[in-house]
Parts: sequence; C-alpha cells; structure tokens
Amino acid sequence: MTRSEKEKMLIGEPYLCMDPELVEERLKARQLVYDFNQSKPEDEELRKRILDQLLGKHYNAFIEPNFRCDYGSNITVGKNFYANFDCIMLDVCKIEIGDDVLLGPGVHIYTASHALDPIERSKGVEFGIPVKIGNRVWIGGNVTILPGVTIGDNAVIGSGSVITKDVDANVVVAGNPAKFIKHIELNKK
Amino acid sequence: MTRSEKEKMLIGEPYLCMDPELVEERLKARQLVYDFNQSKPEDEELRKRILDQLLGKHYNAFIEPNFRCDYGSNITVGKNFYANFDCIMLDVCKIEIGDDVLLGPGVHIYTASHALDPIERSKGVEFGIPVKIGNRVWIGGNVTILPGVTIGDNAVIGSGSVITKDVDANVVVAGNPAKFIKHIELNKK
Amino acid sequence: MTRSEKEKMLIGEPYLCMDPELVEERLKARQLVYDFNQSKPEDEELRKRILDQLLGKHYNAFIEPNFRCDYGSNITVGKNFYANFDCIMLDVCKIEIGDDVLLGPGVHIYTASHALDPIERSKGVEFGIPVKIGNRVWIGGNVTILPGVTIGDNAVIGSGSVITKDVDANVVVAGNPAKFIKHIELNKK
Repeated sequence: MTRSEKEKMLIGEPYLCMDPELVEERLKARQLVYDFNQSKPEDEELRKRILDQLLGKHYNAFIEPNFRCDYGSNITVGKNFYANFDCIMLDVCKIEIGDDVLLGPGVHIYTASHALDPIERSKGVEFGIPVKIGNRVWIGGNVTILPGVTIGDNAVIGSGSVITKDVDANVVVAGNPAKFIKHIELNKK
Repeated sequence: MTRSEKEKMLIGEPYLCMDPELVEERLKARQLVYDFNQSKPEDEELRKRILDQLLGKHYNAFIEPNFRCDYGSNITVGKNFYANFDCIMLDVCKIEIGDDVLLGPGVHIYTASHALDPIERSKGVEFGIPVKIGNRVWIGGNVTILPGVTIGDNAVIGSGSVITKDVDANVVVAGNPAKFIKHIELNKK
Repeated sequence: MTRSEKEKMLIGEPYLCMDPELVEERLKARQLVYDFNQSKPEDEELRKRILDQLLGKHYNAFIEPNFRCDYGSNITVGKNFYANFDCIMLDVCKIEIGDDVLLGPGVHIYTASHALDPIERSKGVEFGIPVKIGNRVWIGGNVTILPGVTIGDNAVIGSGSVITKDVDANVVVAGNPAKFIKHIELNKK
C-alpha cells in the first residue's frame, strides 16, 4: 500500500509539495488567512470563526493580523493563546502549543525543511519535523524556531533569538543560535 | 487615590492589558493602522492625515506600509523621520525618536514586557519601559530594540541586530546581542 | 555630460532618492506590489501578470504575498524561483538570482545603503551595491542579506542568519554574522 503525499508529509517522510491534494489544502488555508488578515479590527467575531475553521484545535486563541500558515489544520494551541502581529507558522507537520503561551510580533515557527543536496532539493521534495511548545512559554518578538524543536514549560525565549535545538523547562535562552541565559525561579507562594 | 490601568501603564507599573479603557484605545489605533496599511500607494495625503491622528507628535513623518503599533499616542518622532516597510512599535510606554532618523524595513521597537514568573505572566499583567532614540540615528533593517533602550545621536545600528542595552552616540553596533563595532568620525567641514 | 540620479543609482554612485524620476518609478512599483499583495489567493494568474510587469526578468516565479520591493525592474530571477511570505528586496541596484533558488519567509535582500556620516546621510543621499545569488541556493527564513553580497551555487543559508560578506559555493553558513558551518557533499550519482 502506498502512502499519499499528504500522509508522507504528516509522518515526516519526503513528499512532493506540488501534489494536487496538498496544493488544494494550502489554497483553502490561504483563503481563510486572507479573510483573516483583511478583516477590520472591530470584526473580532469573524476572526474567531475563521480560526475555528483554520486551526486544528484552539480555545479562544487571540491572533493579531497579519498571520500566515501553510495548512492551519496541523496547528493546535491550548488555552489563552496570544500571538502578536505578523507571526508565521509553516505547519507541514504538527505544531503543538500548550496553555498560556505568548508570542511576540514576528515570531516564525517552521516545521518545513528541504534536502541539503541541491539536486534533490530542486525536485520539489520537502520534509517536515514537528515542533512542540509547552505551557506558559513566552516567546519574544522576531524569534525563529526551527523544525524539530521542543520548548519546555515556563521557558522564556529572548527577542530576536534563533532556536536551533530543544529548550529546557524553566529557563531563559537568547541569541543566535540561542543559548542558556538563566534558570527561572518559580514563585512558590 | 488609585491609578487607572492606563496611568500605571504609562509610568511603567504593572497593569492589566485587558482593561476596557486600554482595549478601546488599542482598537482605535488598530482602526487607524488598518486604514493606513490598506491605503493605495498614491494616497500619501490620506496616510499623512492618519499619522496626524495616530502619532503623539510628528513632522511630516514618512512611514511605508505595513506599519503596526499598539497605541500610537505614545510615539513621538522628530523632523524627517523615515521608516521603511513592515516596522512595528509596541508603544505601551513612550517611544521618543529624534530628528533625521532612518529605520530600515522590519525594524521592531518594543516597550512592552512581561513578568518572568509564569504564573504572574499568565494573569495578563504587563509592564513597559520607554525607548529613546537620538538625532540622526540610522537603524538597519530587521533590527529588534528591547524595552528600556536609549540610543545616542548619530549611532548606526547594523541590520539584523538585537539591541539589548544602551548604545552610545557616534558608534556603530551590530550583532545579537549587538556589540560595539567602531566609532564614527564626524565630518568636521 | 552629467548623469541622471537614476543613472548614478544604478552604477552605485551617491544619488538623491527624492529625485522626481525615481519617486515616480517607486510609486509605479508600489502600485503593482499593492495589487499583488491585495490579490485573492486563487488569483494566481493575476499575480503572474503583475510579476511580468514588475520584475526585470523571471520565468514563472512563485512569490507568496506579501512581497515588497523598491523598483522591481532591478530584480532578475532564474527558473523555478520560490519566495515564501513577507520577503522584501530593496533593489536600488541589481539583485541577480539564479535558477532553482528558494527563499524562506521573511527574507530581506538589501542593495540600499547610506553614508556613515550623519550630516551626509541626512541630506537624503543614498548609494547601492548589487547582490548576486547563484543557482540552487536555499535561503532559510528571516535571513537578512546585506548590500554587495555574492552567494555561491548550492549554498544553504541557515534561518535567521545575517549575511555580511560573500558566501562560497557548496557550503552551509549560519548565525549573526553568518559563519561557515560545513561543506555540502554533492550527490555524484
């Protein structure tokens, strides 16, 4: 039994991004995203209805336009999610985000990758690796998160960071590539 | 006498960002910003009128769409201000910008911050720290400026820099975090 | 014989960016870019026609909105060009891009520069340096490419990098400023 390109994509195998089923699903997502980004600021209810159709799962997520994603259906966010202006999520694989997560403006989360070999790459073959972000994570503005990264609960990512590998729970990281800055003392009261 | 959430915000005390007065002021700013970003390229006069309503003070500022800010009223810019495409200013506290300042595309200026403690943060408590930029400063593209930063006159900020602390007058800085690169010889003629 | 400001711009001499001919050409480009970015996702044919008018040369380039540039006419791209969301090209001088090049989201390519001397700069004098990108280059998301840079064939630029100097063929670079990471073994089969 052969897998569809979509099935290959979702399990992280190389797949053809120009496959007709995937092209159609991306078009559907782009149409929702277009309406989302063109909505007037007072149309909060419209944006909520669009997110209900676009995202895989969410609980009253608050996302400021412009927002961009590839499929939307591969993104799940927990309670009280907030993303500031101009965030981009390339969700060819799952992007799982916990509760109480804040994204500053211009945060990019990528699951999409390509072969390093140029001939392989120019055939239009891609592959994805999921991204997972824990609860109560605060991601500063202009942060770039690379495919395959897991970020632990309560972590704080300094603005402008490039996250190339996993981030532990309860730490602050920053820089390009991001490095450990300090532990976060949890308030015990 | 208790301070309003807006008063707390402006003096840099912790405040609730979902306070109704602040929500309404942000909505008003977003409506102006929406019209600004949707304006046709030839509608320069319309954009000037919007900036007159949006910004705290400006003198014929030239800002390329898209532009984003939180309130606008906390931003003051001097003469001959130019901001290229896609700049974002989170102005929960004052952003004061001098004369003859140039921003490349994608410059983000943040005054907004959150508690490091995750429980505190998830209550929606924020606080701000003002940003001040001197005269004749040139900020390259994709630069991120963090809350509390002061940038001295004539400074040049290399593209892609993350500015985490004050920058002296008459220097070039670059990197993430940005570091001193060289002094600028002022032309004495 | 004196050169026009446009002629000076194109050969990399200091020029006045507010020259009427240049202002008009930028306005024309902004109008095309506006229609491009406002186009509905299903209007792929419209976007292709706009790119035919906007870019100096291209072969069925696929560019996701939003896209921004200064003139467009100074940009040439080879076959199978793909640029993801929110890329910006400041093309006051030539930006030459080879075949099979991929840009992630938020890639900024700058040819525009200013004098370091603040008095000189505030007169509105600018100058440009061309950028050249080889064949089969993959540029990750949120990368910033500075004026004058040449990137060799098959190079891979890590996401979030700031490219301040030339990049050899067949290498991976990353960081701010970007540094050599490794050689790429070309598949000989």
